[in-house]
Amino acid sequence: MKHQLTKYLLFVLLLKTISGLTGVWRWECEEGYCQKKEITPDTQDTAISLSACRLLCSDASALWPKPTGEIHVGTTLVKVNPNSISHSGVGSEKRSHSLIGGAMTRFNKQLNELRPKTKRADGGKTLEITYILSDPGLTDLTLETEEGYALTVVETSDGRLNATIVADNFYGGRNGLETLNQLIVYDDLREELIMPNDISITDKPAYPWRGLALDTSRNYITVDAIKNTLSAMASSKLNSFHWHITDSHSFPFTAQSLPDLREYGAYTPKKIYTPEDVADIVAHGRECGVRVIPEFDAPAHVGEGWQNTDYVVCFKAAPWQDYCVEPPCGQFDPTKDGLYDALESLYGDMIKQFQPTIFHMGGDEVHFGCWNSTASIVEWMQNQGWGRSEEDFIKLWDHFQTEALKRLYKQTSSNIPVILWTSTLTEGEYLEHLSKDQYIIQIWTTGSDPQISNLLANGYRVIISNYDALYLDCGFSGWVTDGNNWCSPYKGWQKIYENKPATVAGGKNDLVLGMEAALWTEQVDSASVDTRLWPRAAAMGEVLWSEPSNGWREAESRMLVQRERIINLGVNADALEPEWCRQYEESCPTNGKFNK
Amino acid sequence: MKHQLTKYLLFVLLLKTISGLTGVWRWECEEGYCQKKEITPDTQDTAISLSACRLLCSDASALWPKPTGEIHVGTTLVKVNPNSISHSGVGSEKRSHSLIGGAMTRFNKQLNELRPKTKRADGGKTLEITYILSDPGLTDLTLETEEGYALTVVETSDGRLNATIVADNFYGGRNGLETLNQLIVYDDLREELIMPNDISITDKPAYPWRGLALDTSRNYITVDAIKNTLSAMASSKLNSFHWHITDSHSFPFTAQSLPDLREYGAYTPKKIYTPEDVADIVAHGRECGVRVIPEFDAPAHVGEGWQNTDYVVCFKAAPWQDYCVEPPCGQFDPTKDGLYDALESLYGDMIKQFQPTIFHMGGDEVHFGCWNSTASIVEWMQNQGWGRSEEDFIKLWDHFQTEALKRLYKQTSSNIPVILWTSTLTEGEYLEHLSKDQYIIQIWTTGSDPQISNLLANGYRVIISNYDALYLDCGFSGWVTDGNNWCSPYKGWQKIYENKPATVAGGKNDLVLGMEAALWTEQVDSASVDTRLWPRAAAMGEVLWSEPSNGWREAESRMLVQRERIINLGVNADALEPEWCRQYEESCPTNGKFNK
Repeated sequence: MKHQLTKYLLFVLLLKTISGLTGVWRWECEEGYCQKKEITPDTQDTAISLSACRLLCSDASALWPKPTGEIHVGTTLVKVNPNSISHSGVGSEKRSHSLIGGAMTRFNKQLNELRPKTKRADGGKTLEITYILSDPGLTDLTLETEEGYALTVVETSDGRLNATIVADNFYGGRNGLETLNQLIVYDDLREELIMPNDISITDKPAYPWRGLALDTSRNYITVDAIKNTLSAMASSKLNSFHWHITDSHSFPFTAQSLPDLREYGAYTPKKIYTPEDVADIVAHGRECGVRVIPEFDAPAHVGEGWQNTDYVVCFKAAPWQDYCVEPPCGQFDPTKDGLYDALESLYGDMIKQFQPTIFHMGGDEVHFGCWNSTASIVEWMQNQGWGRSEEDFIKLWDHFQTEALKRLYKQTSSNIPVILWTSTLTEGEYLEHLSKDQYIIQIWTTGSDPQISNLLANGYRVIISNYDALYLDCGFSGWVTDGNNWCSPYKGWQKIYENKPATVAGGKNDLVLGMEAALWTEQVDSASVDTRLWPRAAAMGEVLWSEPSNGWREAESRMLVQRERIINLGVNADALEPEWCRQYEESCPTNGKFNK
Repeated sequence: MKHQLTKYLLFVLLLKTISGLTGVWRWECEEGYCQKKEITPDTQDTAISLSACRLLCSDASALWPKPTGEIHVGTTLVKVNPNSISHSGVGSEKRSHSLIGGAMTRFNKQLNELRPKTKRADGGKTLEITYILSDPGLTDLTLETEEGYALTVVETSDGRLNATIVADNFYGGRNGLETLNQLIVYDDLREELIMPNDISITDKPAYPWRGLALDTSRNYITVDAIKNTLSAMASSKLNSFHWHITDSHSFPFTAQSLPDLREYGAYTPKKIYTPEDVADIVAHGRECGVRVIPEFDAPAHVGEGWQNTDYVVCFKAAPWQDYCVEPPCGQFDPTKDGLYDALESLYGDMIKQFQPTIFHMGGDEVHFGCWNSTASIVEWMQNQGWGRSEEDFIKLWDHFQTEALKRLYKQTSSNIPVILWTSTLTEGEYLEHLSKDQYIIQIWTTGSDPQISNLLANGYRVIISNYDALYLDCGFSGWVTDGNNWCSPYKGWQKIYENKPATVAGGKNDLVLGMEAALWTEQVDSASVDTRLWPRAAAMGEVLWSEPSNGWREAESRMLVQRERIINLGVNADALEPEWCRQYEESCPTNGKFNK
């Protein structure tokens, strides 16, 4: 270690001939873990900070998620000048140019935020970043987009740092930049930015869908809080933001063709998303390497906003327990022809604003008791020669889904993938209603539900959101009664890290597109969205990118660093442990390496 | 209701002859609950906002905690001009003058924050606030200080609003001002501040100790986050901030006499509290009606910072399970004479900085196995003719506590009340070691622990912090292993509201000074301190101020308003329910009035 640091230390000594170190502690790497030690006269020349130690101390360095290919991170650390960073090789194609420009701005800003404001004027080496993209014009992140990259850093003979990122397209390039960012750290002993001068990493994700679902209907989430969420996603290489934008509780989305939906549906005239807000969020998502997928959940989960139509039945029905799963109830009446015209307009507005490559049609928690209690619906069913059994209500639901899908396709191409939540409709006996070429099924039951293997056996692509690990709203107090909420207890990051796709799917399976953590916001709004999501969603990020065979214990030191990284983005990630456990790695766990 | 609103509406119509209302919804009070209704041509003249409805709709209005004496809140609402508020009757005594000045500034600032920035230039009625204090010179909040007040508001014939607050002293006056503040709301339909023009309230707390304990050692909490905590405490009339400032993990406090403690003990050179920080926090606390009580926990819970002394044994001992309850271990060696000199210096620095009226000496979780494993301690005990039984270690502990108390008294008067946590020392057989005139016992076991009745039967004053309701860190993931943390599950606000002192104490008892919620920060830092504390600590606030006989259901509507109030202070209080449930009160609970 001492030998490898020589160059860095010489360089440091050159610049700091008089001033001492900040503080009395240094860190030493012992068997892959960083340990706090006192600075003594003997050690002051070789003393390194915790952030430097973490970079050098294990093969995955401080990277999150862990790269899947070659990882070579040299142990010679040099000082970087954040005011002397250049980016070249950016394509001339306008849209892609602007994407890379955004990613660059983000990169530079993050480095600046690492340093205390009073320490921003010092020098260091120039960093030149060159992008080599095979398809610089690609701007849409689809299920087929290559997200891998190769990153190399070398120091030139005249002391500049040359970073090269080779990738198929912007999304891969951005991931390389994110990795480079994680390798530049603030050294608080010498108060400067440092990085290894010799890096070679190849990397690509194990799964194409690394998602986060956020509900903005039960409670409104501000545009700033959503953009912060996208930034934190970028930092963990999560790539799919599933926006559950409406529900029975409120309708904050602006459908230009149906202005009443927002006027009557928003909680207040300020708790809305204008088309400009959506454009801002979608653009920020792209810069962060994140596709933004809108969900319009139907035929259940509708209510507020539709007051001036006759398309919704059971709205605010009491006691709600008889008509839906939570207040307020509300479900579309599939027998109303006008409904499908309205849906086509709404889909059109959503497609125009989001320009999505995938669409989410919801489809969860349809309550047959609601339809069964509505005389006109029952009469319509009788006129079709149907009864009132579960099978008959499935026919009604199928009628809705078939007609709604036709209208979606009128506003998109017919091969846009459509996602539906698991439900009675996706159970074995009724599955035939859904084409496996058209639909991707998002699983929200438990990780051991036999429905999962049935879906896979029948050739359906799936996204896994098993609530027993990936519902981030669980574990807080009840809200329709006392006690704790329905999916308690709280799901810790360790549980999420151990929730591997191959385990849930009964073996590695290409039909598993990935996973998605979900934050339902009955008991969350902008004040707590950060602490609920982070750093737990980052744990899932590594599971999906790196497909680690190790358990949470092996990932713990890096997880603590990743949490600090998210904090540095201005996102209020929850603390996982006393800072002491990060300063003395592996001294806290009950059977830790330094607790024996 | 319509009749009572006439004056307000006339006044509104006078100012708003052209402009319409903002939004399409109004609220109506039905059987004590506010319900959202559409604005129609018939109702637009009498339409009121949710905040106005809540003020008028029930006898406790939107007040939190509910006043304990007379409550008369008139139903004529008038517009207030926040730029025309005067305060008079402020005493000339310098220190008390500055306290009231601080409370006034806080009051004015909060009103301004209620309004959107673009709507701050409009008119309204002048509000003149007069204080009548019997003892304006009182500046220390002791266990005997009167905190009650009488608040009246009348409208003069020339249209000014006269508010009078009668109280014994600043602390009572400040509480009256807080109540007045809660009765001034922002009407988002007409975009103005409004209040009732006729108020008469008398009020005083049921318990003198309404506390919050915050740990700043396991993780550092910024000065700003602590000041925000004090502001939110003020808003719920909580009055005791118990600062668990040090522990074995870190020592961020600046003891001027023992500078090494902070230099070696702080996590980083920035994660410290300077004497100026402490002064700032203590002064802010006073303005908020909150006494700031320092805890120096000993003889266990010490470690980092004491490296350059030989007073701590078992420090960082491994496996920690054998020597303490969580890493890192560390316990004072009571046999070292130098220790007591150091303690006297430290106590002196704390007394100088905090000027407290009560001191907390900690005393929890002493691990006899640690002392028993230290050869020099065992030898010392043998020289006293003692063995190594529990009783002998109790003697050693008693020796420590006796000597430490002597040194504390050297720095204070001997009648400063001292608090100790429950422990082996406070159990029946050993209780004789502690004088009930000197010590107050803080109970942190379960609410059904027989130790509680034993302490009360023996005449000890107690503060209740039963962990099965009042530990706000419970319910998250483990940190020394996986699974969830030791005191899971999460304690919801309903549980806290039902945790009444008289129930825990087996009947109303004057020896119960009050309760204290505790936030241990192994898994919390500045990023999440707000969401963990609020609004749950406010639920306890009402329990202690109002001693309500009702359950949480009756308090729910006001609790949701109080949560919004804390958000308006810039504090990230957790959301409890969908905003829908606040807009349609009593429609969400499973057996709610509007869910039948």
